[in-house]
Amino acid sequence: VLSPLMSNPITEDIDVLVFLPRNNSYLFSYARVAPAILYAQQRLKADGGQYSGFRFNIQFENSDCVNDALFVLADRSCGRKPDLILGPVCEYEAAAVVRLASHWNIPVISAGALAAGFSNKNSEYSHLTRIAPSYMKMAETFTAMFAHFGWKSALLVYEDDKEERNCYFTLEGVYHLMADYHIKTYAFFQEDRLDTDDILQNIHDAEAVIMCMGADKIREIMLAAHRRLLTNGNYLFFNVELFNASSYGNGSWKRGDKYDNEARQAYASLNTVTLLRTIKPEFEKFSMEIKKSIEKAGLHDCKDCANVNIFVEGFHDAMLLYAIALHKAMKNGNNKKNGTQITKQMWNITFEGIAGQVSTDANGDRNGDFSLMAMTDVAAGTYEVVANYFGVNETFQLLPAFNMDHFTLRGRRKTPTEIS
Amino acid sequence: VLSPLMSNPITEDIDVLVFLPRNNSYLFSYARVAPAILYAQQRLKADGGQYSGFRFNIQFENSDCVNDALFVLADRSCGRKPDLILGPVCEYEAAAVVRLASHWNIPVISAGALAAGFSNKNSEYSHLTRIAPSYMKMAETFTAMFAHFGWKSALLVYEDDKEERNCYFTLEGVYHLMADYHIKTYAFFQEDRLDTDDILQNIHDAEAVIMCMGADKIREIMLAAHRRLLTNGNYLFFNVELFNASSYGNGSWKRGDKYDNEARQAYASLNTVTLLRTIKPEFEKFSMEIKKSIEKAGLHDCKDCANVNIFVEGFHDAMLLYAIALHKAMKNGNNKKNGTQITKQMWNITFEGIAGQVSTDANGDRNGDFSLMAMTDVAAGTYEVVANYFGVNETFQLLPAFNMDHFTLRGRRKTPTEIS
Repeated sequence: VLSPLMSNPITEDIDVLVFLPRNNSYLFSYARVAPAILYAQQRLKADGGQYSGFRFNIQFENSDCVNDALFVLADRSCGRKPDLILGPVCEYEAAAVVRLASHWNIPVISAGALAAGFSNKNSEYSHLTRIAPSYMKMAETFTAMFAHFGWKSALLVYEDDKEERNCYFTLEGVYHLMADYHIKTYAFFQEDRLDTDDILQNIHDAEAVIMCMGADKIREIMLAAHRRLLTNGNYLFFNVELFNASSYGNGSWKRGDKYDNEARQAYASLNTVTLLRTIKPEFEKFSMEIKKSIEKAGLHDCKDCANVNIFVEGFHDAMLLYAIALHKAMKNGNNKKNGTQITKQMWNITFEGIAGQVSTDANGDRNGDFSLMAMTDVAAGTYEVVANYFGVNETFQLLPAFNMDHFTLRGRRKTPTEIS
Repeated sequence: VLSPLMSNPITEDIDVLVFLPRNNSYLFSYARVAPAILYAQQRLKADGGQYSGFRFNIQFENSDCVNDALFVLADRSCGRKPDLILGPVCEYEAAAVVRLASHWNIPVISAGALAAGFSNKNSEYSHLTRIAPSYMKMAETFTAMFAHFGWKSALLVYEDDKEERNCYFTLEGVYHLMADYHIKTYAFFQEDRLDTDDILQNIHDAEAVIMCMGADKIREIMLAAHRRLLTNGNYLFFNVELFNASSYGNGSWKRGDKYDNEARQAYASLNTVTLLRTIKPEFEKFSMEIKKSIEKAGLHDCKDCANVNIFVEGFHDAMLLYAIALHKAMKNGNNKKNGTQITKQMWNITFEGIAGQVSTDANGDRNGDFSLMAMTDVAAGTYEVVANYFGVNETFQLLPAFNMDHFTLRGRRKTPTEIS
C-alpha cells in the first residue's frame, strides 16, 4: 500500500485531534498508544511514497472516559475544527464525541467504541470508522462455532463495572447476534463477592457457558465448576480474552498457589476466544520501537505494557487508513474538509496494517479474525490454537490441533428437535 | 413572592435558550409549553415588582429527544452563550446538554431529566435544577406507604420503549429507593405482545404489584388478574400516573366495551399514585390562558391538550425561580454570568408557583407531593384521593376517604419477622 516514490505527492496539512487517557491504568493510555501514532506519522513521511506529502499536526488531549473529550471538542468549535479525530476509546465518551463530530462533518477513527450501538451509521454515528473489530464481530466467532457444532443454548456470564463496561458490551454483542439461540444471562458487579454457587445454578439448561471477566474470577468459576463435576464434558466453557490483553484471561491457570493442579484440570474444559495473532517482521520492529518508547517514558508501573495490544496496533493503522482515504478523496476532487467523502473512502477496503491485512466492511467496521484456543496437553496444561474464524469471508477453519472429542457434549439426552 | 412596586428594580437582559420539541406528540411539545413560559415572562414584566427589570430574550429551539439540543448548544458556543437554558425534558438529550452547560457555567432548569442519574450534582450535572419532582421523589410515596403499612415485597412491572423510557426510569427510581425491600422486576417492550400470564406468574411471592405502562395495558393486566382471582385482597395493585397525563392510567376503567363491568370490579383493587393537584384561582386563570393559546395555535390533533400537565406548569415556574435566584445573586454582588451562584440560589428554597407552593431541596430537586387514589365506591366505580404524601417533610397523611380494610392484605401467612 505504501508504494514507493511518486514524483509529486499530494500535499496537505492535516490537523489531528487525539483523545487518549493520561491515566496509565487504561490499556489505551496516552503513554502506550501515542508512540504508535507517532510511529505511523514518521513512517508515512519517511518512505517518500504517495502519502509523504501529508503533514500531520497531531494534538493529544486527555480522555477521562467521561466527558473531557466532549468538552475539549466543544470548546474548540470556535476556532479551527480538526480535520480528523482519533479516539476516544471509552464507549460513553466516544458516543458524545462521535455525535458532535458527525454533526460537524469530521471523520473519527477509533480502536474503541466497540459496542453494538455504534453499528448504526445512518445518523448520529455517520462519521465513525472502527479500526478494531467490534464486539459484534467477535460474537460472529460464537455464531460460526454454534452453527458448526449444532449447539443451541448458552449462559452468558459477565462482570459489570460502572465505568468502561467492556464485558457488558462484549456479551451484549453476543446476545444481539445470537437472538435465534436460547440464551440466558448472568451479571455480577465487580465490587460484589463472586457467588459461584449462584452462577453454576444457572448452568443446567445451557450447553455452553460464555464468560467475560477478570482472569482471576474465571479461575474461581472454573475451580467451582470442576468441584461440582461440571467439567466432565457435559458443558462447554468459553472465555473471551479482550484486546489481546491477558487481564481478561488467556487460558493461563497457573498462580503458584495450592489450587494450580486442580485449575489445570478444570481449564481442560475451558476454551478461549481471542484476536488472531499474526507475526510479520515489520510487526516485530514496531513492537520493539513501542517497547523502547514505553521504557523511555519510564512506564514501569504498568502491567503487560510491553505487549502491543489491539489499541496500540489499531491507532497506528488508523493513520494509514486515513492517509489512503484522504489521498483517494483528493484525487476525486474533494478536500480534507469533505468529511463524509473521506469517511466513505475508509469503508469497504483492505490494506496492509502493521500486524497484517486490515479490512473494513461496507459499514465502516473492521472485520475481525479470531482464534479459538483449547488445552491440547492436559498433563502439561498447555494451550494451542485449534480453530480460526475469518470475518472477511465468515469462515470457521479447523486446525491440525483440533480434537472433535473435546467439543462434543457428553451425557446429554438429545432433544426432539435434534433427533428429527 | 412577586412583591409589588419597588422604586428601582434591578435591570438585566437575560438570554434564555429553550429546548422543546416541535413534534406535538410529546406532552412537553413547544405548542403546549411555550405559552406557559411566555405567560410567566409577561407576568414578571407586568406586575411592576422587583423582577420587572429583567428583560428576557427567549429563543426557542427544537429538541428531537436525540441530539438536536446538544448540537444547537455546541454550534452556538462560538457566539454569545445563553444565560439560562430551559429543557430539554428527554433524559438522554438532557444528559448531553446539562453536561456541556455545567462545563460552561450556564444554569439549566428542566421539568424533565427526572431519572435517578441526574441526582448526582457533584460533577457533570452541577448546574441542573429540576422543577418537576423526579422519579426518585415519586418513589418516596411508595417507601412511605410501605413503611406505614409494613409491606415488604413488590413486583415492578413496566413497559419499556427505546426512546423516552419514562416507565423504565420511573421504576428505576422505585427500585433504587426500595433497596431494603424484596423487589423483583418485570419488563416488556412496547412493541411486544402483552403476555399477562407470564407477568402474573411472577406475582406470587410479592405483596404489591407496582405498574407503569399505558392505560390500556394496565386494564389488560387488571382484567387478567381479576380472572385469576388475584384481586381478592391477597395482593395490592398500584399504577403510576405520570406527569398528570392520563395516558399512563388514572384509574379510569371505562372503555365502552363488554369488559367494562369486569374492569370496574378489577379496578377496585387498583390504586393510583399521582401528582397532588391543587386548585387556586390563579391557576384557573393560567389554565384558561394556556387552553386559549393552544386553540389559537390550531392544535386539535393532540389528545389531552387542554390539560395543564406538570411540564407546562413546571416550565412556567422555572422562569419565576430563575428570576428570584438571579435577583438574590445580583444583590449579593454576582452577575448573570455567575452560573454556579445563581444555581445555588435556586436550591433549598420555597416560592409560590402557578399551581401552589414549590420547594426545592438542598440538591436542587423539587420536592414532590403525591396523592394516592383508590376506588371508594365499587358500585359506581368512582375514585377518591385517600392519602397524600408531602415530600418537603416526608409525611404520609390519611384522608377521610381512607379505608384500612382496602389496604390490608388478606389470606397471608405471617412471616416470622412480621410476628416478632
